[in-house]
Amino acid sequence: MNTEPVIPSIEDIQTAYRRIKRLVNRTPVMTSSSLNTLTGADIYFKCENFQKAGAFKFRGACHAIHVLKHSGSPARAVATHSSGNHAGALALAARMQKLNCYVVMPENSPAIKINAVRSYGAEITFCPPTLADREKGIVKVLKEKKAFFIHPYNNFEVIAGQGTTMLELAEELTAPDCIIAPVGGGGLMSGTSIAARALFRGIRIYGAEPKGADDACRSLKEKRIIPSVNPRTICDGLLTSLGTLTFKAITENVDDILTVNEESIKKAMALIWARMKIVVEPSACVTLAAVLENPELFRGKKTGLILSGGNIDISTAYRLLYS
Amino acid sequence: MNTEPVIPSIEDIQTAYRRIKRLVNRTPVMTSSSLNTLTGADIYFKCENFQKAGAFKFRGACHAIHVLKHSGSPARAVATHSSGNHAGALALAARMQKLNCYVVMPENSPAIKINAVRSYGAEITFCPPTLADREKGIVKVLKEKKAFFIHPYNNFEVIAGQGTTMLELAEELTAPDCIIAPVGGGGLMSGTSIAARALFRGIRIYGAEPKGADDACRSLKEKRIIPSVNPRTICDGLLTSLGTLTFKAITENVDDILTVNEESIKKAMALIWARMKIVVEPSACVTLAAVLENPELFRGKKTGLILSGGNIDISTAYRLLYS
Repeated sequence: MNTEPVIPSIEDIQTAYRRIKRLVNRTPVMTSSSLNTLTGADIYFKCENFQKAGAFKFRGACHAIHVLKHSGSPARAVATHSSGNHAGALALAARMQKLNCYVVMPENSPAIKINAVRSYGAEITFCPPTLADREKGIVKVLKEKKAFFIHPYNNFEVIAGQGTTMLELAEELTAPDCIIAPVGGGGLMSGTSIAARALFRGIRIYGAEPKGADDACRSLKEKRIIPSVNPRTICDGLLTSLGTLTFKAITENVDDILTVNEESIKKAMALIWARMKIVVEPSACVTLAAVLENPELFRGKKTGLILSGGNIDISTAYRLLYS
Repeated sequence: MNTEPVIPSIEDIQTAYRRIKRLVNRTPVMTSSSLNTLTGADIYFKCENFQKAGAFKFRGACHAIHVLKHSGSPARAVATHSSGNHAGALALAARMQKLNCYVVMPENSPAIKINAVRSYGAEITFCPPTLADREKGIVKVLKEKKAFFIHPYNNFEVIAGQGTTMLELAEELTAPDCIIAPVGGGGLMSGTSIAARALFRGIRIYGAEPKGADDACRSLKEKRIIPSVNPRTICDGLLTSLGTLTFKAITENVDDILTVNEESIKKAMALIWARMKIVVEPSACVTLAAVLENPELFRGKKTGLILSGGNIDISTAYRLLYS
């Protein structure tokens, strides 16, 4: 029996894009002459902080729901467990495609994320903040609500959806030398790297992750999934471990994963807010932090950089940067 | 002798645009379905926070310098006194057009603004923070440096330059019902209202200003320039009085000036940051605040709204909103 996980191809990502094109925002690609001067690189920022629900996660959630609806499945609801951007994205994607949505959230989730999920009309079940309780909670919800589980990243359709970010970027960026995306569970990195590898001959594909949550970097080096244990970083979107699908996609397509320290992440975040006048969350900023820490890799290089999301409030941003 | 001030026509603004088109950023027009739902209006945000030097001021400064350079004047330098966005804009515009720039700044100007002016290569002369000292300082600089004075708003070429914001907005917005712009010294409001009046039959043109700095509203009512005395507002860009040119342009073209309270400005700012993921300064937010305070004026109305700038740092934003 073949147990090798199956990951999307570029054609799967292109198909996903045809399916979700009318549902997602086509996000802008921005440049900043002052950040180019500062880094010596030639950077094109793909601004998924302007995506619906404030992060790239909406693409994958939208695509997974689209496929479910057209699969003949009797499921009329979707569910997930998440304290982060996937929960809000799934809730909004479900509402737009007229399915019910159930989210199991740890009871200590940030109020801003709880409010987002609720505002999109999903039903929340709170659980104690342990992985065991989240899993117990989701099993119960799936059974009671006859809902279909949509994993935040280790899911074929979700990965294909996230890859559509790179398709859009490729339409505005001819012959990039490098691409950088953040790595958490690896859904965005997988989709991005599959698409970039197929579209651009000789491109260098980098992941970026915090030094305090460097499980993907170590997994790539040791050629097996190293779980993320007690991660320590301000990047709340990059705490999770790789899954079987994302490990395979990243192993096959990513050249290197650059780890960055917390000070660089804060510096990158302050620079993006000040120079580009856009709101980005810390997880998005590991990409520019990787350029700041490795100027020799990117000097004079046309670099596509994915800003993954912007779900952070001013008081949290202030606390992270100044205290 | 005719002492009636002469203000730009739509043709002057169109000429200005041809002159500065290659120097300015064509800023995006953004929409937000959640802010439309919240307000009941149909809002198109013209994002001058993405303009070079972070505010619309760059347009007018660029145009005034262009005209000076092509006027046959022997002046090889420009100068102004300002503690705000005009200083940074003039400094950058001068550098790009290869003139020297001298700025008289009050010694208590915010460090972020001083740094911006300095980073664009202008020479700063500090003075005590009174209008008399600023004027004494600028007279000295103009004489010593043989520099040409460029007023931040009461200047024909500056007003024509600011009006190009509306020309760009008009290219993306067919048949708006209303336009709203912030009013400080009135340069943006003048250019915007001249252009909007000429381009759109029957459009309603609104200014927005803080209740604590409502000199433009009172000037319009009393049909004479009422100076801004001890203004009290977080909108540091809206403290100045109208000039003779801007008073005339606004009197002729603006239907009404809506005054808004400080709480609405803060609410608007928090909403724009959270829902649109962009960094805007308080002065820009009086426009959305005007919609929030007057929902009946804008319900169902296609409304163009000018976000004038984004020069604020996270710690200041936090302090304004949360303390």
